[in-house]
Amino acid sequence: MAPSDSSPPVTLDTINPKVLKCEYAVRGEIVNLAQRLQRELQEKPGSRPFDEILYCNIGNPQSLGQQPITFFREVLALCDHPAILDRSETRGLFSSDSIERASQILDQIPGRATGAYSHSQGIKGLRDTIAAGIEARDGYPADPNDFFLTDGASPAVHMMMQLLLRSEKDGILCPIPQYPLYSASIALHGGSLVPYFLDEARGWGLEISELKKQLEEAKSMDIIVRALVVINPGNPTGQVLAEDNQQEIVKFCKKEGLVLLADEVYQENVYVPDKKFHSFKKISRSMGYGEKDISLVSFQSVSKGYYGECGKRGGYMEVTGFSPEVREQIYKVASVNLCSNISGQILASLVMNPPKVGDESYESYTAEKEGILSSLARRAKTLEDAFNSLEGVTCNKAEGAMYLFPRILLPQKAIKAAEAAKTALDLFYARRLLDATGIVVVPGSGFGQVPGTWHFRCTILPQEDKIPVVVSSLTEFHKGFMDKFRD
Amino acid sequence: MAPSDSSPPVTLDTINPKVLKCEYAVRGEIVNLAQRLQRELQEKPGSRPFDEILYCNIGNPQSLGQQPITFFREVLALCDHPAILDRSETRGLFSSDSIERASQILDQIPGRATGAYSHSQGIKGLRDTIAAGIEARDGYPADPNDFFLTDGASPAVHMMMQLLLRSEKDGILCPIPQYPLYSASIALHGGSLVPYFLDEARGWGLEISELKKQLEEAKSMDIIVRALVVINPGNPTGQVLAEDNQQEIVKFCKKEGLVLLADEVYQENVYVPDKKFHSFKKISRSMGYGEKDISLVSFQSVSKGYYGECGKRGGYMEVTGFSPEVREQIYKVASVNLCSNISGQILASLVMNPPKVGDESYESYTAEKEGILSSLARRAKTLEDAFNSLEGVTCNKAEGAMYLFPRILLPQKAIKAAEAAKTALDLFYARRLLDATGIVVVPGSGFGQVPGTWHFRCTILPQEDKIPVVVSSLTEFHKGFMDKFRD
Repeated sequence: MAPSDSSPPVTLDTINPKVLKCEYAVRGEIVNLAQRLQRELQEKPGSRPFDEILYCNIGNPQSLGQQPITFFREVLALCDHPAILDRSETRGLFSSDSIERASQILDQIPGRATGAYSHSQGIKGLRDTIAAGIEARDGYPADPNDFFLTDGASPAVHMMMQLLLRSEKDGILCPIPQYPLYSASIALHGGSLVPYFLDEARGWGLEISELKKQLEEAKSMDIIVRALVVINPGNPTGQVLAEDNQQEIVKFCKKEGLVLLADEVYQENVYVPDKKFHSFKKISRSMGYGEKDISLVSFQSVSKGYYGECGKRGGYMEVTGFSPEVREQIYKVASVNLCSNISGQILASLVMNPPKVGDESYESYTAEKEGILSSLARRAKTLEDAFNSLEGVTCNKAEGAMYLFPRILLPQKAIKAAEAAKTALDLFYARRLLDATGIVVVPGSGFGQVPGTWHFRCTILPQEDKIPVVVSSLTEFHKGFMDKFRD
Repeated sequence: MAPSDSSPPVTLDTINPKVLKCEYAVRGEIVNLAQRLQRELQEKPGSRPFDEILYCNIGNPQSLGQQPITFFREVLALCDHPAILDRSETRGLFSSDSIERASQILDQIPGRATGAYSHSQGIKGLRDTIAAGIEARDGYPADPNDFFLTDGASPAVHMMMQLLLRSEKDGILCPIPQYPLYSASIALHGGSLVPYFLDEARGWGLEISELKKQLEEAKSMDIIVRALVVINPGNPTGQVLAEDNQQEIVKFCKKEGLVLLADEVYQENVYVPDKKFHSFKKISRSMGYGEKDISLVSFQSVSKGYYGECGKRGGYMEVTGFSPEVREQIYKVASVNLCSNISGQILASLVMNPPKVGDESYESYTAEKEGILSSLARRAKTLEDAFNSLEGVTCNKAEGAMYLFPRILLPQKAIKAAEAAKTALDLFYARRLLDATGIVVVPGSGFGQVPGTWHFRCTILPQEDKIPVVVSSLTEFHKGFMDKFRD
């Protein structure tokens, strides 16, 4: 075991096996291949049957042309460079409410220092704003001290996994399909993912009987299930949970003594009139469950919604129903990294407190927001219809979030060809799709799926003027694929 | 073990014991106490013998009044709100080179989208700039693909610990005293900290014989030492390593097959004319050691230097001497969190490529930079002298970084009083100092110290107009303390 002069100090055999085990398909093999193709296209334009790579693998709206909300960016710019706040030219460049808001925010920051580390949980005044926004959303009190502001939602998820997972005997109930941050984080922290399957035939429904079954099975393997992850609206599945279903979930967690980890980052992304987002906190409180009854963590991010500010890395978790001693441990872990970035913190407060009627920016803000959300709804429907028109493809509606997760039923000859290439069938399909069209999707195996079924995840994020090309290239590719491998 | 209806799902007995074990004194008990005092002062002004809390516990320059570098903030503001780049009013508000630089940076970002997730390692164009800056600094090539941009340096340290530590049988050689991020990260990732003691009598010197001794001792306990952490300039000790000492360290790592983890975040903070910062990469290359000879990771941050932009959470690590397969694993872990915040990435490129002679901002930039660095040097000297003038206190020079780490020799009566209060002596002292003066320092036990010796860490960051008050309050407090507890 002793390292010698000639062998390198770190090899795949000597790194942490938990790192080896971790997988993150959203930026996996297909994306590496896409980046190679992109370089090839830059070096030899015209060398492929397409001009550009369309990254439909990841919920990254601004990378595909979505414009940021002007008011948010005005405030961020002014907070970055407060020296211009009182200059007359600034009134010509910035809306009056952005100037006012930036001043208010600076007043909430000790010493107006946007370049200082903040409180480990985030700037108190911004947490006050967020809490007030959540109160207005839910109609139940929110405590600024319950919020931990983080660099996007991912570090918050890691913090909870780090807290809960002691060994592979600790399990986390996760939906299948799931967003692979969860499987990756559980692997990195050495716990066990306890899968529960969403019911594709019922619109990716979440059945309590399935939760019970999987919980019992885990117990029979001596796994202590610590928490239940629910992603609502769903990723990659797009379903929006019904209120009574959420109530059942809350009851289940209380009865079984599970922490409810609620991924609510798509709370502003609901596209169907008959569904509405309800936070699990609101549902719990409306059932009369208070702090003592349920341990609940809600994750939110500035990367999604209509704002789509992925690069700003703003996010937070609202932590309720934990003892002060456990809260102190979460605080300690947050403190080791000092604080999340201040621009992200400011943005997290802005999305919970956007311009109001009467503010100079209100009209443009509303137009930008409605424009983005209605366009996303149209794109979701167009792509869903397009997938459903393809031979062997079925696709549930995207009620919310930013993805479609069509199921593909492929001919035996394709299955054999994938086997011969020692490749999962969905990866085999996604690779050929990329190669023929430049469209990047993520194979369903990256999210988990019922064994023997195959899917891929495709975002609804290409801009509307690109959608016809996406639909026609997808259709043409799929027809060609089916013809080639027809039995 | 099964959770019942009445017991909460998470208690101190059921959380990850690694979290319980982790300590981070920089934001520990003393800071909580200070925050309480601050609220008290706000509610009842005049209730204490001081008007404000002076946070000398943490390297957070802008929280104590240091102003950001104007050029950097101009560029950040323009990148946040590129819509104003072409407006005529902008020319009246921003320097011409900041406008030009912002345009250049936007051109380097795919789609000019500062709101999009970037490449998992950071935007390629910004990594090009950073690599060029490192080449200019060291005189040896730097590869943009070796850089991983992170939200401050802390997540980079965690990533390396996560990669290297498999169990408590894996050890990391760390200086004592050390910056507690290292002990915290090793605890969280379940490894063992193998201490090596810096020699206080020789200006906190790093002795190779001590490294050897501790490595052998660890081996005898079946601990596989994976890496050596060196903090240069030192935190909390302020020493700047001599070139020949660095060469010995590099040789030692190569011989023993250790990864060299070089914390170089204070590279711009050197205050004495006879010492210079040399990166470990430069030292290694100047010895003829290439990629195959030494595995080296250098950490850098935008939080320190003359910029002190802690709230922006920008930083990176330069990873050299690892196999492509291991690099791929690091890339995978970086991908799980998608990317670091784009403002922090931009700022990391700016500090490696500041205004040059001939640029409109060059003069003001240079004046701001020199003003901050020369003032820090004066403050370091004044505080060092003040400490050394106190009875029973000895303090090594701060050659670099942002801290002094004086040793306190206290009377037996104080030792007994601390014992009676079941408190470490340095915590006992720091608490009373805070209570009497509002000055927040961190007890030496948070960094580690030779058993039986006592220290505290105090930043050199209060603004110059505050230094006389700091010195007089410290002096008065210390005299009173010594008189009270004189044997």
